[in-house]
Amino acid sequence: MTSPTSDTFTINGDRLWQSLMDLADIGAYDDERTGLRGVNRLALTDADAAGRRQVIAWMEQAGLAVRVDRMGNIYGRREGTDPAAAPVLTGSHIDSVATAGAFDGCLGVLGGIEVVRTLDERGITTRRPIEVAVFTEEEGVRFGTDMLGSAVAAGRLTLRSARALTDRDGLTLGAELARTGFDGPTDVRLAPPHAYVECHIEQGPVLADHDVEIGVVTGVQGISWQKITLHGRAAHAGTTPTRLRADAGLAAAQIVVRLRALVDSGEYGDLRATVGHLVVHPGLTNIVPARAELTVDLRNPDDVQMTRAEEALAAFLRELEGGGPGLSVTTRQMARTAHVPFDEGVQKVVAQAADDHGLAHISLLSGAGHDAQEIAALCPTAMIFVRGEYGGISHNPREYSTPQACAHGVDVLATTLVRLADQD
Amino acid sequence: MTSPTSDTFTINGDRLWQSLMDLADIGAYDDERTGLRGVNRLALTDADAAGRRQVIAWMEQAGLAVRVDRMGNIYGRREGTDPAAAPVLTGSHIDSVATAGAFDGCLGVLGGIEVVRTLDERGITTRRPIEVAVFTEEEGVRFGTDMLGSAVAAGRLTLRSARALTDRDGLTLGAELARTGFDGPTDVRLAPPHAYVECHIEQGPVLADHDVEIGVVTGVQGISWQKITLHGRAAHAGTTPTRLRADAGLAAAQIVVRLRALVDSGEYGDLRATVGHLVVHPGLTNIVPARAELTVDLRNPDDVQMTRAEEALAAFLRELEGGGPGLSVTTRQMARTAHVPFDEGVQKVVAQAADDHGLAHISLLSGAGHDAQEIAALCPTAMIFVRGEYGGISHNPREYSTPQACAHGVDVLATTLVRLADQD
Repeated sequence: MTSPTSDTFTINGDRLWQSLMDLADIGAYDDERTGLRGVNRLALTDADAAGRRQVIAWMEQAGLAVRVDRMGNIYGRREGTDPAAAPVLTGSHIDSVATAGAFDGCLGVLGGIEVVRTLDERGITTRRPIEVAVFTEEEGVRFGTDMLGSAVAAGRLTLRSARALTDRDGLTLGAELARTGFDGPTDVRLAPPHAYVECHIEQGPVLADHDVEIGVVTGVQGISWQKITLHGRAAHAGTTPTRLRADAGLAAAQIVVRLRALVDSGEYGDLRATVGHLVVHPGLTNIVPARAELTVDLRNPDDVQMTRAEEALAAFLRELEGGGPGLSVTTRQMARTAHVPFDEGVQKVVAQAADDHGLAHISLLSGAGHDAQEIAALCPTAMIFVRGEYGGISHNPREYSTPQACAHGVDVLATTLVRLADQD
Repeated sequence: MTSPTSDTFTINGDRLWQSLMDLADIGAYDDERTGLRGVNRLALTDADAAGRRQVIAWMEQAGLAVRVDRMGNIYGRREGTDPAAAPVLTGSHIDSVATAGAFDGCLGVLGGIEVVRTLDERGITTRRPIEVAVFTEEEGVRFGTDMLGSAVAAGRLTLRSARALTDRDGLTLGAELARTGFDGPTDVRLAPPHAYVECHIEQGPVLADHDVEIGVVTGVQGISWQKITLHGRAAHAGTTPTRLRADAGLAAAQIVVRLRALVDSGEYGDLRATVGHLVVHPGLTNIVPARAELTVDLRNPDDVQMTRAEEALAAFLRELEGGGPGLSVTTRQMARTAHVPFDEGVQKVVAQAADDHGLAHISLLSGAGHDAQEIAALCPTAMIFVRGEYGGISHNPREYSTPQACAHGVDVLATTLVRLADQD
């Protein structure tokens, strides 16, 4: 073996990078705002389906046995010397938001395939099988629930409810699975793997701030998504006295401003709050909005503080309803996950692998949700974070990690997977 | 003559009401929010074109000579004994907002036709011709500028710029005039009429509050419309620290809240402020908005206070730009009209007509914009307001004036028009 020590494995960084760039061509678009090429590969669109076919082709070229389950989750399996042993699982997702870059999710999937290629070239066999997973609709932007494929695989959500989810055009996930050819035959509930390790870009500035290459992820902060609809009363902008208005748009704006005030108060721990979606109806210049709809995305590493922040928002909504005539509020919880701590044993294997590769690392909590938080319900789990440029900007065509940073992350993944796959 | 005094004219209220209801069938829709039947007849849509054809048919049945100008404005002319004398003009518009009732604009057009029918039945001739106008795109919701047809007829806007305006789909007003068959041959610039009188629903609560039937309109308050676009930076909701965000949606919400604070401060006179249109991009739950667009509709009866309110808004926009990294603001003035005072002589004729019909009246300023404010640049002008129910709600399917209220308003219109048309 040519690796620096007897049990570290260095992958082919150029080949990994080429895969990342090739996959980014599928669903590519010219982003007017940034002047860059972005990726738009929403789950189970034609672009996502084309990306999936490319990934399956690469899996098969790497000798993996591919199966697709009833949620469209894809698994590529490399056998171990003990085929009856629970496999070590790695992977992530290739679906994207509408204005994405090339790395989010894709690094974990293509990194897993690159590990297999490397092991094949070196003639390495492991005791346990190694499997590479591609989970469906991790982003949640098309069907409204993130980590959807992995959540069903782990048993947190039912197959039936997931397949019945609809997009903005009323298309069901089940129908889109069938249309794109990814309504697979395999049972969706995953038999517990031996361990799960996911390599992912950080999507934040912490690794760069600390000038380290590798993040050993200790867990995922809690996430709360809700949709709020405000019902007011349409009225003429010029003639309706201010005191007689029930302005749904104003109430929506007050919610956005109040959420930032909750964050800035410092009274809810390390709370983050985002209103990413906001529309008013009928949306005409001279009509007081009759209805407004917005989404609220709350994140908090502390479950108690998260609940307090949700309660503060709910109290403000009651205050809005009570504040004027004719305004009513409805809310719908779209997603809610508690803080998920990762397995300390797997974290130690990752940290040791980084040390053995001579890569500086720190431990940190993930701000974003990941498939790993679902699979953590089934088996010991951890994640490897790779540093991003430009403050770790993500969900944006500017998202970028250097070829070296990607290669280093997948080096650590390779060594980690082999060591886990050789465990009893 | 059967009218109560030798020179008042009582119209056929049932026939007027039937015309209003018949026209409301064109572009009718079932409004989910109110459970009522609403009207959606945006300017130069198929529904508006069908409404126009119906109005022209009624004009021709009433013996009017119909002409259409290059803005699609329609005029029906009843000759006087002195055809060379400048005509007395009445009218309004039949285009609507997307969620409208049956009365806004339509009462003035159908009221004018009903006056002509009444004069024909009574065998009344006037010295001056009487003309009934239907102005194009008064609402401004499709092509972005209100009072558009009358503004071009009065010479405030050029024909070329008006015809080049586009709707949300990029269709030009000129092309839509041609498509619907209303790109008429007549010159758009209107020769100054002797006087203009427009009968319109109040669209507010003042007449009902004073328990009177008729409003003598003293003028129209100033209107300022602008579109504000905020450019921020898309970023991941879970991982981007709050201090590093350039959240275009938050900035938009802050503008909405600040506008209400300006109104509530009482420091800008009788200011009204409305944000009727607000969208954020990309509009996804877990992405900080990169861009937001909103419209601001300001109304003020005092031009100095209006300018002060606009300046306060501009100062707040500069504050937003200076407040954080990466946020920029662009604004575009969509419409701006100063306070338009109406002619005292025409107001006196209207008030006297109301007295002669035994109808209680008050004088009041219009909160909404009307075609009359454009035609006021050409000739002595005033308006007759008719009382509305439910607080005068308008731009809403609940908009309603009783058959009696409508008939009383058009009675006053008839008497006013005949008296003006008999002036030297």
